[in-house]
Amino acid sequence: MGKLVGEFNAYRSKMNEKILASDNKVMKRIYGIDTLTYQEGALSTKVKEMLGLATSMVLRCDDCVKYHLEKCYEQGVTTKEIFEVFSVANLVGGTIVIPHTRRAVEYWEELHDGKN
Amino acid sequence: MGKLVGEFNAYRSKMNEKILASDNKVMKRIYGIDTLTYQEGALSTKVKEMLGLATSMVLRCDDCVKYHLEKCYEQGVTTKEIFEVFSVANLVGGTIVIPHTRRAVEYWEELHDGKN
Amino acid sequence: MGKLVGEFNAYRSKMNEKILASDNKVMKRIYGIDTLTYQEGALSTKVKEMLGLATSMVLRCDDCVKYHLEKCYEQGVTTKEIFEVFSVANLVGGTIVIPHTRRAVEYWEELHDGKN
Amino acid sequence: MGKLVGEFNAYRSKMNEKILASDNKVMKRIYGIDTLTYQEGALSTKVKEMLGLATSMVLRCDDCVKYHLEKCYEQGVTTKEIFEVFSVANLVGGTIVIPHTRRAVEYWEELHDGKN
Amino acid sequence: MGKLVGEFNAYRSKMNEKILASDNKVMKRIYGIDTLTYQEGALSTKVKEMLGLATSMVLRCDDCVKYHLEKCYEQGVTTKEIFEVFSVANLVGGTIVIPHTRRAVEYWEELHDGKN
Amino acid sequence: MGKLVGEFNAYRSKMNEKILASDNKVMKRIYGIDTLTYQEGALSTKVKEMLGLATSMVLRCDDCVKYHLEKCYEQGVTTKEIFEVFSVANLVGGTIVIPHTRRAVEYWEELHDGKN
Repeated sequence: MGKLVGEFNAYRSKMNEKILASDNKVMKRIYGIDTLTYQEGALSTKVKEMLGLATSMVLRCDDCVKYHLEKCYEQGVTTKEIFEVFSVANLVGGTIVIPHTRRAVEYWEELHDGKN
Repeated sequence: MGKLVGEFNAYRSKMNEKILASDNKVMKRIYGIDTLTYQEGALSTKVKEMLGLATSMVLRCDDCVKYHLEKCYEQGVTTKEIFEVFSVANLVGGTIVIPHTRRAVEYWEELHDGKN
Repeated sequence: MGKLVGEFNAYRSKMNEKILASDNKVMKRIYGIDTLTYQEGALSTKVKEMLGLATSMVLRCDDCVKYHLEKCYEQGVTTKEIFEVFSVANLVGGTIVIPHTRRAVEYWEELHDGKN
Repeated sequence: MGKLVGEFNAYRSKMNEKILASDNKVMKRIYGIDTLTYQEGALSTKVKEMLGLATSMVLRCDDCVKYHLEKCYEQGVTTKEIFEVFSVANLVGGTIVIPHTRRAVEYWEELHDGKN
Repeated sequence: MGKLVGEFNAYRSKMNEKILASDNKVMKRIYGIDTLTYQEGALSTKVKEMLGLATSMVLRCDDCVKYHLEKCYEQGVTTKEIFEVFSVANLVGGTIVIPHTRRAVEYWEELHDGKN
Repeated sequence: MGKLVGEFNAYRSKMNEKILASDNKVMKRIYGIDTLTYQEGALSTKVKEMLGLATSMVLRCDDCVKYHLEKCYEQGVTTKEIFEVFSVANLVGGTIVIPHTRRAVEYWEELHDGKN
């Protein structure tokens, strides 16, 4: 995996630990629900992760996009499928989503680095 | 189908006609892409409509939610699946999505009216 | 209380029941956290409800605004205080918050109806 | 002018008076700046009102859209020009702007009612 | 104080000076109202700064979050209280607020650096 | 031109090429409409680029702001006019637009570098 991926995950883990160590019950429960939401159910985890990705894109949260790209990658989502998720997000959310799509494409490529 | 559904579709059709009659090329093309985006591809129309629904919910566009609920209904999305889409949208988008979920549930029920 | 208040609460209760009856665990837990978040803690419920109100205003969710106005009213927030919450929301969120402030003022007045 | 226009302006005036009567200095000053912003300057009032309209559309504030449509109408903006403003807003803001465009077209027509 | 704090304040001051030097009356007045809004009133500056922080978080403006964290720090807001503000913002605004919370926690820690 | 401008354009071009190479028809068409939208019409390209800038500011998309600043610069928009666009965006969108205005001012200055 590329450098972007490593840096993102290191910072994310470090700060999540601090948030959970704060002993704020609400924050802890939000983290708990987050795990629950994407579990297999009537919809597969794969579909749910694509929903997480598309919603993160239209809300233009780069870190959330990175997180769900990684999960989609683990779920075996193909590049063709990922671009179809991007296309819905760019259509619904407008051209302000394009800069986030550029960064998403870069991250998606890094997730595949060293895998060929 | 219920009254909400009929009213929404009548207004939507009437105003869409006026927009397309305006002879503005950009608006016409946006409508054209909209049709293209949700066609079968690497992802099924069913999955894409759920992506359209989830993104509309987090962006809190009630009319867009209604439109995609109708498309999901046509695609055979079950109530259990719809609620899983709602759950991702409410988690990612926060409790401000709840009022839109209430209206979505009402519309979803109306789509089923007269079908039992 | 005025008519707006009664109608809002009736619809809200009816639809919340349907959402909770859906047996979607994520939605149930989100409702559960919602209750937990505004309880007395390091910050008072009164302050937290004002935070809930201000965030709902800048995100421009009229139903959320109504809900938190009612809670603020129950917590004894004065009209002078409420307008200071409105002022922060209008400054931070811009003039697009003004139409929501108009509706908030109307609802706030209705909450006081029959109380003089 | 049509019914929508009259109702919008009546409610808007009534509630603005209440907000200004509240004696909250911040709210008063925000109203004051609002007037200042759209005055003739390096850019004409006509251009500024179109900027006000486009920003209101992408932020999806129907009442703000109505207000700026009325100002654009007073400034002599043509229907062809208005649709070009709509097209930028729909491109930048995405298809979630479409429902607001439908309502904008309806309001724009009402502004012209009785003027033929 | 830490490095993040110094860098943020240096850039902020430098660019604010340029904006104010531009001689644009509207921008100047917006800066003026900003100062007025957070002064002691019916609500304390402390409460208002927490409102400023919470609204900045749900609107996901990292620089605004930094600014209000600094003001909250000056007002003696405790870490326990800050996390309760975070919890309201994460509940209302959803999990897209989490990445901003991570950066907020980092900045909050830096504000305390060298103070032990 | 300054360093910020060069870096932005290099990254933008590189990633746009990758997106267009993906062979996703929807993404391609969105790029196509983007070009069409800002062409001379009932409104001049200059006015449309200011609309693009203002909408990008209130939606707080720094990269979109950079892009439209460059186009405005090419269209001969003056600094006085640009600040009037900024003022509408800050009024409508609120003080959360200020940090983006700071970065916009920096970029605008860089666009003029080496031109004196």
